[in-house]
Amino acid sequence: MIEEEVAKLLKLKAQLGPDENKQKFVLKTPKGTRDYSPQQMAVREKVFDVIIRCFKRHGAEVIDTPVFELKETLTGKYGEDSKLIYDLKDQGGELLSLRYDLTVPFARYLAMNKLTNIKRYHIAKVYRRDNPAMTRGRYREFYQCDFDIAGQFDPMIPDAECLKIMCEILSSLQIGNFLVKVNDRRILDGMFAVCGVPDSKFRTICSSVDKLDKVSWEEVKNEMVGEKGLAPEVADRIGDYVQQHGGVSLVEQLLQDPKLSQNKQALEGLGDLKLLFEYLALFGIDDKISFDLSLARGLDYYTGVIYEAVLLQTPAQAGEEPLGVGSVAAGGRYDGLVGMFDPKGRKVPCVGLSIGVERIFSIVEQRLEALEEKVRTTETQVLVASAQKKLLEERLKLVSELWDAGIKAELLYKKNPKLLNQLQYCEEAGIPLVAIIGEQELKDGVIKLRSVATREEVDVRREDLVEEIKRRTNQPLCIC
Amino acid sequence: MIEEEVAKLLKLKAQLGPDENKQKFVLKTPKGTRDYSPQQMAVREKVFDVIIRCFKRHGAEVIDTPVFELKETLTGKYGEDSKLIYDLKDQGGELLSLRYDLTVPFARYLAMNKLTNIKRYHIAKVYRRDNPAMTRGRYREFYQCDFDIAGQFDPMIPDAECLKIMCEILSSLQIGNFLVKVNDRRILDGMFAVCGVPDSKFRTICSSVDKLDKVSWEEVKNEMVGEKGLAPEVADRIGDYVQQHGGVSLVEQLLQDPKLSQNKQALEGLGDLKLLFEYLALFGIDDKISFDLSLARGLDYYTGVIYEAVLLQTPAQAGEEPLGVGSVAAGGRYDGLVGMFDPKGRKVPCVGLSIGVERIFSIVEQRLEALEEKVRTTETQVLVASAQKKLLEERLKLVSELWDAGIKAELLYKKNPKLLNQLQYCEEAGIPLVAIIGEQELKDGVIKLRSVATREEVDVRREDLVEEIKRRTNQPLCIC
Repeated sequence: MIEEEVAKLLKLKAQLGPDENKQKFVLKTPKGTRDYSPQQMAVREKVFDVIIRCFKRHGAEVIDTPVFELKETLTGKYGEDSKLIYDLKDQGGELLSLRYDLTVPFARYLAMNKLTNIKRYHIAKVYRRDNPAMTRGRYREFYQCDFDIAGQFDPMIPDAECLKIMCEILSSLQIGNFLVKVNDRRILDGMFAVCGVPDSKFRTICSSVDKLDKVSWEEVKNEMVGEKGLAPEVADRIGDYVQQHGGVSLVEQLLQDPKLSQNKQALEGLGDLKLLFEYLALFGIDDKISFDLSLARGLDYYTGVIYEAVLLQTPAQAGEEPLGVGSVAAGGRYDGLVGMFDPKGRKVPCVGLSIGVERIFSIVEQRLEALEEKVRTTETQVLVASAQKKLLEERLKLVSELWDAGIKAELLYKKNPKLLNQLQYCEEAGIPLVAIIGEQELKDGVIKLRSVATREEVDVRREDLVEEIKRRTNQPLCIC
Repeated sequence: MIEEEVAKLLKLKAQLGPDENKQKFVLKTPKGTRDYSPQQMAVREKVFDVIIRCFKRHGAEVIDTPVFELKETLTGKYGEDSKLIYDLKDQGGELLSLRYDLTVPFARYLAMNKLTNIKRYHIAKVYRRDNPAMTRGRYREFYQCDFDIAGQFDPMIPDAECLKIMCEILSSLQIGNFLVKVNDRRILDGMFAVCGVPDSKFRTICSSVDKLDKVSWEEVKNEMVGEKGLAPEVADRIGDYVQQHGGVSLVEQLLQDPKLSQNKQALEGLGDLKLLFEYLALFGIDDKISFDLSLARGLDYYTGVIYEAVLLQTPAQAGEEPLGVGSVAAGGRYDGLVGMFDPKGRKVPCVGLSIGVERIFSIVEQRLEALEEKVRTTETQVLVASAQKKLLEERLKLVSELWDAGIKAELLYKKNPKLLNQLQYCEEAGIPLVAIIGEQELKDGVIKLRSVATREEVDVRREDLVEEIKRRTNQPLCIC
């Protein structure tokens, strides 16, 4: 008996033999990346649709740039984060890197085409060799949805529109309450100056301040003093400022601040913020905005107002696990970046925003899962089916007529499918109608049109079929 | 005088000094790539819209995969073309390559998710380190639009649908007359066998045959005999076959061919083609299809029917230069590719097609240029303008109301723009309506609504403005 089993197993092993070679191969996507299934694509398209409609509502054009840039185009734009850039292998020819964001390619595009004036959006994937945290929507390949206004304009009008766009999108997406923190690089720099931070330490102290949304002031202070060598009393002075946040009244209070008001940069920043708040009130969104002195933003290229939207909580749904609350949109003013590319150093002031869609995808997906909502992944209106055998030719003829008339139609790829299987396919795929061909119907010049939901069947004259299908499915198809 | 000039120039040079450093930097996109301007994006979106609508009409789901794959995923799939793959630099971690097409990632996706059955489309950029010919629409970064049907089905039904889709798309795009060449890898292999080509030379002789659409039979024969060492009489036998093309009657003729009909593979291929032509007739597209024994297709992974659509001519438009006529869509059956990824070697038969959109973009762009057609790049319905100074606040309030009501609206980012400048902006951007705020209108509770085309102005009560704008612009916006 045992010998028999061994023989069987050996035979099995021999059969598997050639396949084991294949097993060495790892079947996966690269670290930090993922495929999008049809269900995930349905969510993605729904989110993109909200965002694109908003960008178009604000009169934006759209551009696209290559996924890689000359390496030198990206050099010196991202500070410490440059180490996260993906380089391409030198295979002869130019040295290339994958884009790290859409802002630097946009600035390169403006300088290259000598544009001084554009309002554009750009939705595309960007690449960062970061430590992925995929359950929280942090990937190495991820989408950015950017809207930017380039051009020399009167102060704070485009800046206010960027904040308005951010609020419109986050409201439309219905992902919960949010708050937009606002600050200004000039206020930060002015504050560091009046507190006594040496010029050379502005950037590094700035990145310590940026951590205040995750850790306590005590820890940040320890970093400033312990690691970065700041005098404790200087750190305390910073602490007094950065722990403040509020509305326009805080702006006005700081405009009276005996030290800050002596600093030209801070004064300019505060003056602009005051104007910004006026415009935000006219846009009806001032209640969503918080002037927050601890907001610093990592990237080097910002020169003026900066902002970041955070979710206050995810909507509490039955069975839903709490998601890490964090930044879902951000942006700011960068007036110097285009000049870095222009051969004559001509500046083009820019302000823009970026929507963190990956985190938003995660939130929407989780909500749909919690609700056990089934997302339709096709838009098929009708399945062409047959009640008897030997009707493949008739099915092919009918489905072709429907396609040519613009109807979304399918048929099973079998010569003689069972009617039950055809009906089951409709149930699974959410197809609302079945056009059933039978021998009697062919003689009578009709098609049996069946509603999958109600199981009602009516005979429709073949020449009226297209109109009848259109009539029954004319409500705009919703993928959610 | 001269000294003065020299001094001036030296001063100028000193001023330019720091900028010259910047000049070392080359302001360009990588070789073989391009940016898409708003005008080009408008064309691109129009073409994609036609393609996506067709894919959805045929019941396809949509997926997406990362732009790079593990290097080993792509290894051994593309034959000679593998040298054109872009590798990423080894920065520690996995070895990665940019995707070369969408077919291999699709097969990897099926095997990884153990799917045996899907009809999906995928539109994304792919990367090939080829010699670019950008004026003819050949780039190193370019879009592919793929539709594939995976699953075990009755013969030739999905294959026929792929050809139907290709014809629907090429007809809808109105880029001129086209013809779809069809052949079968099994017929090619059978033909080589009966002509006396050694097994080891099948692939290389196949790639010689593939050149027949560009060069004469004499040249191809010379390559086969001179470079590839084929006996001249063997080459002549091949020549007798591959110079034939026709419809279903040629299929029937070859089924009676004394040599070919003795070859099992060729017989299978011819039998399937006969069935295919039956289905194509039912789909009403048999007149677009030509059985062409010289069609070979480069890629290794095809196993059955193969096809390629060529434009017969570009539409002759005034002032238009003739474009190189070439392949605009192609595809075929690949029943072995998924099995290369599956740990147990399980096969999933697949058939699909790919639309060559870059060439199509070029053709459509060239046609628009020749017609001097202006493409609108925004969808803005109304500009919010003011007739007098000091009305910025009122403009901001009104534009915000319109955005909140879903109206696509803009305003100039100036405190006190001139009315003339605001009207000119509308002319340039193709904005059809202007909502003009004036002091008198504010008092009367009305807005002056002006049609840019007719210059007609009417006073509209503020509470009716949204409805009136919607009424006047409710025709579906067309970007072409």
